[in-house]
Amino acid sequence: MIDEIRGPLEKIHRGVQGALAITLMGMDGLPVDTLHPNPSDHEDMDVSSLVVEYSSLLSQVRNSAQMFAAGGLEELSISSEHLTMIIRPVNEEYFLALALTPSANFGKGRYLLRVLAPTLAGALS
Amino acid sequence: MIDEIRGPLEKIHRGVQGALAITLMGMDGLPVDTLHPNPSDHEDMDVSSLVVEYSSLLSQVRNSAQMFAAGGLEELSISSEHLTMIIRPVNEEYFLALALTPSANFGKGRYLLRVLAPTLAGALS
Repeated sequence: MIDEIRGPLEKIHRGVQGALAITLMGMDGLPVDTLHPNPSDHEDMDVSSLVVEYSSLLSQVRNSAQMFAAGGLEELSISSEHLTMIIRPVNEEYFLALALTPSANFGKGRYLLRVLAPTLAGALS
Repeated sequence: MIDEIRGPLEKIHRGVQGALAITLMGMDGLPVDTLHPNPSDHEDMDVSSLVVEYSSLLSQVRNSAQMFAAGGLEELSISSEHLTMIIRPVNEEYFLALALTPSANFGKGRYLLRVLAPTLAGALS
């Protein structure tokens, strides 16, 4: 199963210039698989902890969206001075989180998460 | 002062096809000005309440980003099945929130918020 997951993660990581890390994580904050090739490039920033921290917002955002009839949550993105994070639920239990440099191709990142999420959902089921 | 605020809000609203509403709001959830021309187009969805609800996430996200050295928060976007919301802090006390249909031009919305936020920061100071 791990290859079916590692493959799409590598596609996303290689496909976006400026990708720092990509992780497939459970809603409980436990990672299934992570690509984080050069942690030293951003040593002051704790990308992994930030993913876990942001993931705790996911259920909150999801509930709000449903409460106000905006429908199911498809994507959450957070841009800060030194890092952009795009988070996309894969199914009820797992989500993808892609960390990018601020100058990375945001649109390409969103696109790859969107097209590869169903592949990962299939691998997890 | 209200014209200096209404002007940029109209520019954003007119500039993005698929814009449902744009609001300049205090971090406390009180709106300064809102353009919400056709509420009947999305009568099942309570866009205004959703903005207030999401705004409560802002300070949380901001604190997390700073804690993990990602720097100041620049943008938060939330895409759901029936609505996309882009939120951008204008200064310490106010933020812009743009509600879009899912098929609207997301990139154009982000761009207009980014370039007009400084104008609004000037009008508020």
